[in-house]
Amino acid sequence: MKPFGLLLAAGLASLAFSSAAIAADSGPLPAEAVKAAKEIQAKALAGSGAFDFVESLTVRVGPRLAGSPAARASHDWALARFKELGLSNIRAEAFSVDGWERGVESATIISPVAHHLHVSALGHSVTTPPEGITAPVVRFDTLEDLEAAPEGSLKGKIAFVDKKMTRLQDGGGYGEAVGVRGKGPEAAARKGAVALLIRSIGTDSHRFPHTGITRYADGVAAIPAGALSNPDADQLSRVLALGQPVSVKLVLSSQSMGPLSDANIIAEIKGRELPDEIVVVGAHLDSWDLGTGALDDGAGVGIVLASAKIMKSMPQAPRRTIRFVLFGAEEVGLVGAIAYAKQHAAFLPKHQVGTEADFGAGPVITFNAAVRPEAKPVIDAIGRVLSPLGIVPGRGPSGGGPDIGPMAAEGVPTAGLGLDGTDYFDYHHTADDTLDKVDPKKLDQAVAAYASFAWLAAESPVAFGPLEKKAK
Amino acid sequence: MKPFGLLLAAGLASLAFSSAAIAADSGPLPAEAVKAAKEIQAKALAGSGAFDFVESLTVRVGPRLAGSPAARASHDWALARFKELGLSNIRAEAFSVDGWERGVESATIISPVAHHLHVSALGHSVTTPPEGITAPVVRFDTLEDLEAAPEGSLKGKIAFVDKKMTRLQDGGGYGEAVGVRGKGPEAAARKGAVALLIRSIGTDSHRFPHTGITRYADGVAAIPAGALSNPDADQLSRVLALGQPVSVKLVLSSQSMGPLSDANIIAEIKGRELPDEIVVVGAHLDSWDLGTGALDDGAGVGIVLASAKIMKSMPQAPRRTIRFVLFGAEEVGLVGAIAYAKQHAAFLPKHQVGTEADFGAGPVITFNAAVRPEAKPVIDAIGRVLSPLGIVPGRGPSGGGPDIGPMAAEGVPTAGLGLDGTDYFDYHHTADDTLDKVDPKKLDQAVAAYASFAWLAAESPVAFGPLEKKAK
Repeated sequence: MKPFGLLLAAGLASLAFSSAAIAADSGPLPAEAVKAAKEIQAKALAGSGAFDFVESLTVRVGPRLAGSPAARASHDWALARFKELGLSNIRAEAFSVDGWERGVESATIISPVAHHLHVSALGHSVTTPPEGITAPVVRFDTLEDLEAAPEGSLKGKIAFVDKKMTRLQDGGGYGEAVGVRGKGPEAAARKGAVALLIRSIGTDSHRFPHTGITRYADGVAAIPAGALSNPDADQLSRVLALGQPVSVKLVLSSQSMGPLSDANIIAEIKGRELPDEIVVVGAHLDSWDLGTGALDDGAGVGIVLASAKIMKSMPQAPRRTIRFVLFGAEEVGLVGAIAYAKQHAAFLPKHQVGTEADFGAGPVITFNAAVRPEAKPVIDAIGRVLSPLGIVPGRGPSGGGPDIGPMAAEGVPTAGLGLDGTDYFDYHHTADDTLDKVDPKKLDQAVAAYASFAWLAAESPVAFGPLEKKAK
Repeated sequence: MKPFGLLLAAGLASLAFSSAAIAADSGPLPAEAVKAAKEIQAKALAGSGAFDFVESLTVRVGPRLAGSPAARASHDWALARFKELGLSNIRAEAFSVDGWERGVESATIISPVAHHLHVSALGHSVTTPPEGITAPVVRFDTLEDLEAAPEGSLKGKIAFVDKKMTRLQDGGGYGEAVGVRGKGPEAAARKGAVALLIRSIGTDSHRFPHTGITRYADGVAAIPAGALSNPDADQLSRVLALGQPVSVKLVLSSQSMGPLSDANIIAEIKGRELPDEIVVVGAHLDSWDLGTGALDDGAGVGIVLASAKIMKSMPQAPRRTIRFVLFGAEEVGLVGAIAYAKQHAAFLPKHQVGTEADFGAGPVITFNAAVRPEAKPVIDAIGRVLSPLGIVPGRGPSGGGPDIGPMAAEGVPTAGLGLDGTDYFDYHHTADDTLDKVDPKKLDQAVAAYASFAWLAAESPVAFGPLEKKAK
């Protein structure tokens, strides 16, 4: 049960309070800025149009894997949207990314009883031979158990790591479980395995495998790696529990496409007083190939575009520049985000703050920020403006979102508008990440939060940073 | 929200009442029989073992399409289970069924924008050419709209019927929506269509197509027919709504396998006084090929076997014979049920009642029966014994279940133990019909209901039938 309806009703009621109450509450923020932020929230809640952007992207483009023709179509789509909104300084900032394409994929238990399993290759997995790999399966509870297997003990075998992800509101179960996706192929190959299967990193019980990027280590054999859906991982475990040797045939015919061109798509509302100081509001434009990327990260793209639309509609621009960044190639290793931090390195000290929407379609339920101590009262005041939306303080400092990481490492302050991720990993990186999973009303609330936060960060009387660079 | 936990708690509490209360309540039923029925319920609720049967069937056999080698494996599995339970008169009663096998299947929107769609062939669909069919799509809201299209208006086109199924506790939305699956190919072909796509007959919003049997009419071209998942039907409709011509490439490489042998698997607890009078407790052993048939109808098989186990454990047999029938080839047109009615035609007047569990994994929430007027007080008394399980009277007379239909047409009385079908059509006939969807506790409640009903029907002081034969 989510108390979202109640919270939203409470938020709308509080928006009807007088500006006297607002002024008393604005702390170090200019009262006019808080008034504008409340107007922005009211506009968003009345219908932000964010859902329409997600629909347009997922219908007119669909899945948009980094470097693919569809990713290029998504660039054109985003540039056209920014133009329609009348934003400034619209551009595509190019970078190079390693391309990869999924092919035929199947997994079948051959013996002791035949079962078809639902499998998808992990991103950047090498291919199996065309006839596939047929080998006995050895099961491990965790990556650590696999790493502890005796040297050579998996020679000629398929390693299967069956680690289950925990469902948590803040997605905390992901970090705990996802290690096997990145490190599993190397660990399995070190023990002699010919392929790796993992239980999907996901919280659902539907027969959708969850893909996601993996990586290979130099000097270790690169072996094909795939994820089984949760019910199929259950089934493989049950068949193993029968106590007889279990043999699986695995076909994953993916291929590397070499270096391809991709881009970050950027536009701005130019600041009226401090145009060189930048508030970054981001999302990522690329998606995995299995679904249409409605939640990951079409929803974030919708939040960014609808936020831009509402802020652009205000009678005057905020003090600082608001920069809308639709990052490319997030899914395959934050490639666009790293390129952004490099290309804008000289200007990162002038970045007031960075925040990204990349955790589904809302609502926003927590807020926190990593800023200079002098700016903390401003963050507290912004928190009070966000509170009527049903947003509470989050724990600890925020990373701001995956694509904010590379600039944060260089000392850019960050803000986290924490989206409710309870169901996010039911759909994340699966074929089932489609538009029907997006609730327009919840998305409107997220726009209210992101846009009003960005506005107030741009209106702040004090700079949020720069912070110390992080040790590498 | 289902109040099942509360109802179950209430049921368990009432089981603790004294036998005096039971005697006062037993009406025309012998008090000893009611006492035995209550014992059966308590045993079932304490752990019926039904889930273990479903697990064994879905793990050791898996999907078991009528006439397939897996169906034959399921016969051996069921015969072995009946033997283990120590039942009598165990046998396979053979019949012939038209075999069919699914092949490669894919659907892609080619223009105006490329989209991969999730599709599955309807059962018994003819194949497309190996290169598929690429044609413009014409959308209809309903089968009736398709049937009203001008003659020849679909020449060279793919008809798409986009009728949505309503979610109802009793599955009532299915009957309203399913017509297009059986009659759609004929209707589309009559207008000149080269293929038919339908929105899945299902209530979920996941990318699983729902298969199910279709049929062709003599003298009308047989065209390939497939179901799109609900999100994919949404997507096709959205692309059509862009207003440009939409072209789809459809590949469905299924094939007919000719006449194959299948069987009903049968066993009995012989009645102690009226062994020639028969209470049929049924389920169907076959399943569709996409999932493992855990809900449809592994759950029913589990209910039947666990009911048999508990009834067999009672100190003495009931008055009449209880016959456990695991029907074959239900999914492809009630072929096993029709064979049973034919093979047992002479004995149908001695059938006390027929009931089937074929609507998922419980709980049972309603009870009704179609019997002679003289037997109604007995049915009312049985209803009072079932009531503590959380079971209320159902509306109108019951058909008893799909495989009971052919014997009911010959005048066999029927009883309906109505399973809660709220979620049933989320999984029905999809790849997602797997063991993780079965809740052992709910299944135990269903066993309590089916077994105690069957026991009391077998102990009834009056015959339930025969009824009039139904007009054909």
